[in-house]
Amino acid sequence: MGSLSNREVDEWIQEPNLHPKRRPIPAAQRGVAASSSSEQFKTKSSKHKPQARRWHPYISAESANRTGSTLKKAVEHLSNPNTISLGGGIPLSDFFPIDGISLRPSSFDNVETREKTSSQTTLHATKHDIADDTSVYDLSVALNYCPGYGSAQFMQWIIEHTEIVHDPPYADWQCSMTIGNTSAFDMCLRMLTEPGDCILADKYTYSSSVETAMPLGVKFIGVDMDCEGMLPDSLDEILEKWNPAEHNNARKPSLLYVIPTGQNPTGTTQSLQRRKAIYRVAQKHDLIILEDDPYYFLQMDEYGSTASEIQSPVEFFKRLVPSYLRLDIDGRVMRMDSFSKVVSPGARLGWITAPAQLIERYKSHSDVSTQSPSGLSQLVFFKLLDEHWGHEGYTRWLMHLRKQYTMRRDFILSACERYLPRQIVSWEPANAGMFQWLKVDWEQHPNAKDKTADLVEEEIWLESISAGALVGRGSWFRSSKDVPCNEVFYRTTFAAAPLPKIEEAIKRFGEAIHKVFELKEKS
Amino acid sequence: MGSLSNREVDEWIQEPNLHPKRRPIPAAQRGVAASSSSEQFKTKSSKHKPQARRWHPYISAESANRTGSTLKKAVEHLSNPNTISLGGGIPLSDFFPIDGISLRPSSFDNVETREKTSSQTTLHATKHDIADDTSVYDLSVALNYCPGYGSAQFMQWIIEHTEIVHDPPYADWQCSMTIGNTSAFDMCLRMLTEPGDCILADKYTYSSSVETAMPLGVKFIGVDMDCEGMLPDSLDEILEKWNPAEHNNARKPSLLYVIPTGQNPTGTTQSLQRRKAIYRVAQKHDLIILEDDPYYFLQMDEYGSTASEIQSPVEFFKRLVPSYLRLDIDGRVMRMDSFSKVVSPGARLGWITAPAQLIERYKSHSDVSTQSPSGLSQLVFFKLLDEHWGHEGYTRWLMHLRKQYTMRRDFILSACERYLPRQIVSWEPANAGMFQWLKVDWEQHPNAKDKTADLVEEEIWLESISAGALVGRGSWFRSSKDVPCNEVFYRTTFAAAPLPKIEEAIKRFGEAIHKVFELKEKS
Repeated sequence: MGSLSNREVDEWIQEPNLHPKRRPIPAAQRGVAASSSSEQFKTKSSKHKPQARRWHPYISAESANRTGSTLKKAVEHLSNPNTISLGGGIPLSDFFPIDGISLRPSSFDNVETREKTSSQTTLHATKHDIADDTSVYDLSVALNYCPGYGSAQFMQWIIEHTEIVHDPPYADWQCSMTIGNTSAFDMCLRMLTEPGDCILADKYTYSSSVETAMPLGVKFIGVDMDCEGMLPDSLDEILEKWNPAEHNNARKPSLLYVIPTGQNPTGTTQSLQRRKAIYRVAQKHDLIILEDDPYYFLQMDEYGSTASEIQSPVEFFKRLVPSYLRLDIDGRVMRMDSFSKVVSPGARLGWITAPAQLIERYKSHSDVSTQSPSGLSQLVFFKLLDEHWGHEGYTRWLMHLRKQYTMRRDFILSACERYLPRQIVSWEPANAGMFQWLKVDWEQHPNAKDKTADLVEEEIWLESISAGALVGRGSWFRSSKDVPCNEVFYRTTFAAAPLPKIEEAIKRFGEAIHKVFELKEKS
Repeated sequence: MGSLSNREVDEWIQEPNLHPKRRPIPAAQRGVAASSSSEQFKTKSSKHKPQARRWHPYISAESANRTGSTLKKAVEHLSNPNTISLGGGIPLSDFFPIDGISLRPSSFDNVETREKTSSQTTLHATKHDIADDTSVYDLSVALNYCPGYGSAQFMQWIIEHTEIVHDPPYADWQCSMTIGNTSAFDMCLRMLTEPGDCILADKYTYSSSVETAMPLGVKFIGVDMDCEGMLPDSLDEILEKWNPAEHNNARKPSLLYVIPTGQNPTGTTQSLQRRKAIYRVAQKHDLIILEDDPYYFLQMDEYGSTASEIQSPVEFFKRLVPSYLRLDIDGRVMRMDSFSKVVSPGARLGWITAPAQLIERYKSHSDVSTQSPSGLSQLVFFKLLDEHWGHEGYTRWLMHLRKQYTMRRDFILSACERYLPRQIVSWEPANAGMFQWLKVDWEQHPNAKDKTADLVEEEIWLESISAGALVGRGSWFRSSKDVPCNEVFYRTTFAAAPLPKIEEAIKRFGEAIHKVFELKEKS
């Protein structure tokens, strides 16, 4: 296993090429349920890169016992184009009752105005575009069955995008589409844990992930955080001192779950130095890192900074903190990417990037469970991201989002400054994502000595609901459910409501704080 | 628990009402991630119906330990319309880069001609149809998050459809959308089995289901079949004589997996009498029936029958064999419906129907794994099935499919009659589904005494591939993998290839049989 030097990492962060030279998708791979490989879509040579470490001992019994789908394997016997298949129950496209579909992409400038004008462009798909040679993807394929990792057509875009943004520094990385990070995380846990295991995560983390793991008998162990997220020394200490007897006989953890950018719920973003330090601890203890990064492209300028506006797609990429995948010289990262926060959550479409050996296990599972993402979602994304925008157009969309979310983050912070009593409520401005995390000094509660942190948290929360503002309770997001906690936090989002409502909600939350702490309102 | 009398069942099979009187969806339930209930969409009274039996002892530890999603539960605090939520990371529809989507539904008459003419109708959706009051469903909702059981908008159609087709005879049935039967089956297993359990199924069954169960430590036990599928007496005998010592200490099975219509792979369809008999065995041993029924609407006229063509949607329904759900007076059926074989497999959209207590567990799981089906799939199906076709139009589409598949089934059988040596190959005509099952009398193989059934099966299969025809091997579909088998079968489909190719493939398969059995070709 290589050790990570700063020099190496910096060398990888090269100018991204937004117009990679692609090889055309062979005709046979454009068809129904056709198989393809990540390798064929890579545009950069990986000859100089090492192979990923072997992870077979980490694979769960459930995952190791998967033999995959017999019927899907039989498709291998169709390599001769003259062979006729009476094998699979795959309907003819004649029996799909939709002849055509059209999309109108938004133009960015009027996106906030709710005007019903739109760009002139309309994107079309029919059942015969492949036969007519007007597109490599069409409804005859999108409406039919698809391999577990997704269609070749949209996979090509995903592989190129992954090279542009992350350029993983080991050779045998691959991708598989997913139906979103929630499902991908569930499937990764079933691949890499056994009941009774513990996994490591930030002290406060995405509650849904804890709730996904718990019924599998997998417990989250929280690692202390500061304003840059997880503390590498705390992570190392937990692992160094691991004593199964203190954890219901759980073996030493082998999985680290991180939300490195715009962390949910705290809004923190790990700096490059922090990521390198955590990666080194992962190397020392041979952890697999599950990088859950839906907010990666919602990185903003620092609050109050006078940084000049980003002018070009290349500059946009250069200002992003590198991902764990970008640092991953060992092939120890399973990165989960999602379109939910940057295109549409309803499409249920994302992808994972990991060593081929783990992608193969993931696909074996999806073949007998989730199958593929919706072909309608894949087709719509292909039309928009590949045929219409290309990588440069998509980057310009992300630049637009960055501006919008920066403005929204600035807006909620100015409301906080106006309406929240600073002697009680404190915060670090979020620099990425959708969440502003607020800390409440609960010990200033008039009856603090008769209360616990959790009681005060509940009192404020209910008071805020009475005042007409719903926020998230910090305790919902605790990783270690059985460790007593003496802190009170709330998660607020600047993503979900129109701006005037955000201001009103913060005002109401402030009123609740004033009431609970018996403060005089500022007049 | 009630006992099942023929009279009762026959009474339920009433004239379906294809234009049920619906209550409008309340405005609050048309919104993003809004919750709704199956109950509100039922159009028939269930006052006279019994409640489902309680299944709590059947729930697995994994499923029983699910607490559900804290964040999704917090939405309950938004019942006051004046409350502003800063709770969830739900993007505004301004940040979805698609302004409009349009669909052209097929007209049925030209569906086989591959003409590019289409019906004049185009169905449209924008982000503002709900606000503009032009539709109850639009892109602002479909592209955003959705509850695990799906949107209220398309759920209304599903509940009405379930009443029209199955009218479950117990009161507290509900539905949840799924991302297809493969995923639904995986999730049902995780809800209702523990590692080491056995489940009962037809002797030959869908291989992917066996492969889904196996890594979970759940073993299929095959029940003998005849040309109507599973034999009730064999099922009863296995359960009566169950001895854990003979099954690696597995407890007596509590799950029965059936594909009652156009069974995969054998093409058999259980008659109403057979279904009633099996249901009685399920009552006797208190089994939950997992009814996997994607081919339900691909029921055909009997081969060679002179039955008159179906004239009306009501007549179409009356000719269908009733489902297990329709017989389910105890609430012991989890029925899995799929659109894959009748609209589009690529949409990854289906639904389950089961007692409320099981739907609630299913939803708790989907909230932290699959989430909802793709909103694009839901919107496209809503536009087509609800706004455009309605229940009557959808039934006319199903009548069209019935005609097409009947013609295809007739076609493959006439090819079999022409090209397969009847002294070696025998078959019962399929009366539903996509598959024709062929039995080979392997003991007539010239070297039969030095061979096993499996070796002959492989020899014929490879010879057929050499001749240019891929068929499914019967052994792939065996439920009990460790019971020796002395039969040779092949699964062929009449769904997947154009007619001339089906004929050519059967001819090639016939050549392979002739060659392996050293028969003289008919000239």
